[in-house]
Amino acid sequence: MASSQYPQETFLSVKLSPGSFMEKKRHAASSASLKQQLGFLKSTGRYEAFKLKWLPAYDEPPAVWPIGNWLFWDSDIGKWIEGACYFLHTDYDAEVDAAVQELTDMLAGAQHEDGYLNLHYSIVEPTKNRFTNIRDFCELYNAGHLLEGALAHQHYYKNDKLLGPMIKYVELMIKTFGPGKDQLHAYPGHPELEIALLRLHERTKDPRHLELARYFITERGNPKGVDGRHYYDWEADKRGDDPNARPYFYPERTPSNWYYSASVPLVEMQGVEGHSVRPMYLLTAVADMVRMDQKSTTDLQKAIVRLWDDMVGKKMYVTGGIGSIPQYEGFGIPYFLPQGTDEGGCYAETCAAIGIMMMVERVLQYDLDGSFTDIMELAFYNAVLTAISTDGRKYTYVNQLASSDANAADRSEWFKCCCCPPNIMRTLAIIGGYICSEPASIKPEDKHIAVHLYAPSTLEFTVCGQPSKLTQATDWPWSGDVTFALETASKTVSISLRIPQWTSEWSIEPEPPHRNVQKGYLTLPGDWLAANPSFILKVKLDVRMLAPHPLVNTDTVALARGPIVYCVEDMDNSWVEDHFKSLQLDPDAEVVERPTVDRTTDEKYVALDVYRGSSLLPTKSLKAQPSVPWKTLAKEAADANVIDVLHFVPYYFHSNRGGKGMMRTGIRRWVR
Amino acid sequence: MASSQYPQETFLSVKLSPGSFMEKKRHAASSASLKQQLGFLKSTGRYEAFKLKWLPAYDEPPAVWPIGNWLFWDSDIGKWIEGACYFLHTDYDAEVDAAVQELTDMLAGAQHEDGYLNLHYSIVEPTKNRFTNIRDFCELYNAGHLLEGALAHQHYYKNDKLLGPMIKYVELMIKTFGPGKDQLHAYPGHPELEIALLRLHERTKDPRHLELARYFITERGNPKGVDGRHYYDWEADKRGDDPNARPYFYPERTPSNWYYSASVPLVEMQGVEGHSVRPMYLLTAVADMVRMDQKSTTDLQKAIVRLWDDMVGKKMYVTGGIGSIPQYEGFGIPYFLPQGTDEGGCYAETCAAIGIMMMVERVLQYDLDGSFTDIMELAFYNAVLTAISTDGRKYTYVNQLASSDANAADRSEWFKCCCCPPNIMRTLAIIGGYICSEPASIKPEDKHIAVHLYAPSTLEFTVCGQPSKLTQATDWPWSGDVTFALETASKTVSISLRIPQWTSEWSIEPEPPHRNVQKGYLTLPGDWLAANPSFILKVKLDVRMLAPHPLVNTDTVALARGPIVYCVEDMDNSWVEDHFKSLQLDPDAEVVERPTVDRTTDEKYVALDVYRGSSLLPTKSLKAQPSVPWKTLAKEAADANVIDVLHFVPYYFHSNRGGKGMMRTGIRRWVR
Repeated sequence: MASSQYPQETFLSVKLSPGSFMEKKRHAASSASLKQQLGFLKSTGRYEAFKLKWLPAYDEPPAVWPIGNWLFWDSDIGKWIEGACYFLHTDYDAEVDAAVQELTDMLAGAQHEDGYLNLHYSIVEPTKNRFTNIRDFCELYNAGHLLEGALAHQHYYKNDKLLGPMIKYVELMIKTFGPGKDQLHAYPGHPELEIALLRLHERTKDPRHLELARYFITERGNPKGVDGRHYYDWEADKRGDDPNARPYFYPERTPSNWYYSASVPLVEMQGVEGHSVRPMYLLTAVADMVRMDQKSTTDLQKAIVRLWDDMVGKKMYVTGGIGSIPQYEGFGIPYFLPQGTDEGGCYAETCAAIGIMMMVERVLQYDLDGSFTDIMELAFYNAVLTAISTDGRKYTYVNQLASSDANAADRSEWFKCCCCPPNIMRTLAIIGGYICSEPASIKPEDKHIAVHLYAPSTLEFTVCGQPSKLTQATDWPWSGDVTFALETASKTVSISLRIPQWTSEWSIEPEPPHRNVQKGYLTLPGDWLAANPSFILKVKLDVRMLAPHPLVNTDTVALARGPIVYCVEDMDNSWVEDHFKSLQLDPDAEVVERPTVDRTTDEKYVALDVYRGSSLLPTKSLKAQPSVPWKTLAKEAADANVIDVLHFVPYYFHSNRGGKGMMRTGIRRWVR
Repeated sequence: MASSQYPQETFLSVKLSPGSFMEKKRHAASSASLKQQLGFLKSTGRYEAFKLKWLPAYDEPPAVWPIGNWLFWDSDIGKWIEGACYFLHTDYDAEVDAAVQELTDMLAGAQHEDGYLNLHYSIVEPTKNRFTNIRDFCELYNAGHLLEGALAHQHYYKNDKLLGPMIKYVELMIKTFGPGKDQLHAYPGHPELEIALLRLHERTKDPRHLELARYFITERGNPKGVDGRHYYDWEADKRGDDPNARPYFYPERTPSNWYYSASVPLVEMQGVEGHSVRPMYLLTAVADMVRMDQKSTTDLQKAIVRLWDDMVGKKMYVTGGIGSIPQYEGFGIPYFLPQGTDEGGCYAETCAAIGIMMMVERVLQYDLDGSFTDIMELAFYNAVLTAISTDGRKYTYVNQLASSDANAADRSEWFKCCCCPPNIMRTLAIIGGYICSEPASIKPEDKHIAVHLYAPSTLEFTVCGQPSKLTQATDWPWSGDVTFALETASKTVSISLRIPQWTSEWSIEPEPPHRNVQKGYLTLPGDWLAANPSFILKVKLDVRMLAPHPLVNTDTVALARGPIVYCVEDMDNSWVEDHFKSLQLDPDAEVVERPTVDRTTDEKYVALDVYRGSSLLPTKSLKAQPSVPWKTLAKEAADANVIDVLHFVPYYFHSNRGGKGMMRTGIRRWVR
């Protein structure tokens, strides 16, 4: 079993270079998001909720029936504590420190005698009802986030003030859930606790922590879980639910166990479905379990690959975002990927993209495969980074690829269901931990470092007790040149460099010993590195016109350069009136790169311009009719007025400079 | 006020030429469908239902909660009686005659003392609950179809055995519904009764029949109908409905009054929405009311045009079908027109297309505008005719444009909810009545005949008491040459010929007095006709490649020739394995016409062949990834293996010859 390399801990070994792209994003989170979110925790009631006083919010009707608006508050607190503890290591702040300690005291004070800890069933609904709506009321999801917060808390404070109570809660769960006669054969409606339990196991080595996670994972979707029935169906009947009273997020009938990634056991599941965050969190845990115990989990490992291929090939946007259906925040049918809500749907929730990163990071620990890393990079630079403003004070929850009148491109300071902002905050806190990992080496005295992401940074590590360093100097993602410097006394340090599949050309100076890229990584052996401790990787940041899979039925092209996907925004193209719906782009048009520093945000990026390669389809001349002769359309397209210059900005950068909220990623293909 | 020209009566003046296209379709309905449907009425319990004995069917759970599976049985009986009475005029059959008379007796026998007549509330649910679920339980919809059946019954039998009871029922409705303090301010959940009441008014001239229809039409969608609330919301509360218990056909929350075309009053409605049959039936009645009383209904007339343009320009398939969302059998958002259920949805219900024909026929009576007629013709030849097999024994309810594994292209003998088969049967019975109409002339002694559809037929009419005839000889829709012969002693008969907008070329021999086409019709004056009683209209049946509106985001082309839209089917293209999903068609390819008589069905048609103008996109080489470089796609498309010959058949003809159920209408556009 390989040892854990959770970025939640390894990030401390990585120093991001001040002022660099990645460091600026992390700095925005530490210097702005952290306290801005603390302010909202306080003003919305979450902060003091565990004092268990009745709050006016509990009287509000649910925005998404039957889910009370406060049902996820525990998780918001858990994620904030988690992120705060990471930042306390590197960016100490007394107010944050005090808040974490006060929250810790309040949480400990709210714990029941038997270890139970949950806001809703302690104050809003009678305690006796706990664990009666495992499917929808998210007690176990909340517990997972509190447990992850407690792990970060212990790591920073070196005490058990939060982890102690959480382990006591886990003890209650070990009693409550399992295959035993008197136990509930349940599993979290929203996976997350599984992730936390495996990380807890890694710290405690208590086999019961692993066992509970394994039970949750393998019992999930069992059609005959209780009395020959699916647990969620059995539970709903026990509650006396009216089968026709459908939660708002069910488009069709009850039961809708597909929504929870629980229609069938994972090993039988053929594709991702339902709410898009759930399978990502579930697969993160599954991948971690596979790493811990590969021999017993071949079918689970196959399931990861099967669901991954289904998702990446049929249900993922060009930005790495997933989920096209707003109603249930989830996956549509294969190849159903409209760019906006007025074209059929687009959701691409931030938390789901974070889930992709978490899942890939776990997979890479047992399977160093660049096809996973490429998607992690894609999701990070586009689907995740777009969700936080350059100043760290505003967020997106939904990451649509095109705006519309009903859903303008904009950002918010907070959301009623506020899972995404603290999630991106805690992710950026540990982003350094995603850059590299150490795959298991054959000989324990060897060291093998795999570089997944390129970013100016210094990784510190030890080989045979000797402190060593690996430094990257680069202007990535705007330049593809990365200068590496390895400082070590050892000659057995090998390095694997990810060669992105999107590049057409790469080289290493001095000439590497071979160019044998295996599963997306080029491995430089220790002897060559000993002779060449400093070397430059040059990756061509090709500008590419990307089309969705042809079966997507959306005849568009999106611009990308290196790992960055671009969009058009009204700020740079002020003539736009229709959210760029009628804009056409020649996929063979020449694209000009324009290094830029935006004045209002101080954001540095490479803008892209297309001169005389785009036009507006004159749709006004079309009469109301159910079809248009192709020849008429072709003539209209050919005669369309050419736009002198069309300006593109990185997709992640949209909605940072004001404007009227018009944005589009994939542009209609112009055949001229 | 112009006098009525309902095709339900005028069809008797039109003799379809034996063996001609239209006559063969009508003959299939009279010789096969009529008795085949009678058989199913009997075997399913519908026939004897009005004896009011308990049937096992009433114990079955509803397929579409909360709608009991028998809730529309009254309408099935009504439509069958209606169609049967039309056919009795022209194709007398003793068994049919006896069945109509027996049904009439059973219906009369089931009527309550006060005139009420409804199956559900007479046997399944207590009588006292009647008119408590106007929104969903379709009492008024059923009453409308029974009333239309009764009008046809009186017309054939010249007695009031059915119309008498129905008028008694209408008397009860006049008492029950209206603006009065003690009246219900309700209107049919599913429009239809409005159509029937206006036709009844035309026969009885009773102003109260018009008034009730007007009340239903104008009260519909009133946000403050009862106690300051929408009638349907008020009614639901009165029933004590759980607001979270959603009918299966609501994708989102209750109330969903948009589903019923009742979100706002019609004059405020900006676009068609919800269940697609309802607005068509509603607008049919509205158009009839506009004809009767144009001065008071300017806003209604504007609403017709506004909703029509919205529907035709943004929500209609190339076949004339409407409705892309299966769950609620209705309209999607604008430009959301996937071709099949595995691409996001496709419904195009037969009854909705019949509704288009009914609506247009009513509009043409006060506004002779070929842009309406073109769509009526499109819907008839494609969206309606496809719904009945060539032998008249099998039907489609849903008219998808492309098949899929889950929804193969096929036909059924019957449906649990069986609105469509008797609807198409009763429509074909009177199809001759759709060919021509007589717009109001300025001078009463003048005669003006508008020819909407071309079909071998003889129209008989009188001018100043003199019997006259207008004969069409043609092989339409396979040939565009139509030879007209006018036999009349009068010199004041003028004829307007529809010039389809889809043709690029037309002529009349001998040379007509002018070529001044107004709103799609060319009017030949009486003096020219007196000198040229025989003339030939030549309309070029252009073969066209039709694309959907560019905002539809479906980059496909469909083949059409004249009014006929084509599809590809596995019977002619046996290599297909993927429902033609990866098929690409060059929109500039040459198309070869091939006159055909199919051996198995004896159907005569012009097949279309494309030689070396199509190919299969090799999707297998695409790895699982969220995008494809455009250049890769373009190269794959260019290198695709060319198909030697691709065979097309008329869309209406699909699924008549067996096969594996693979069919597609719009083909991916091939850029080579």
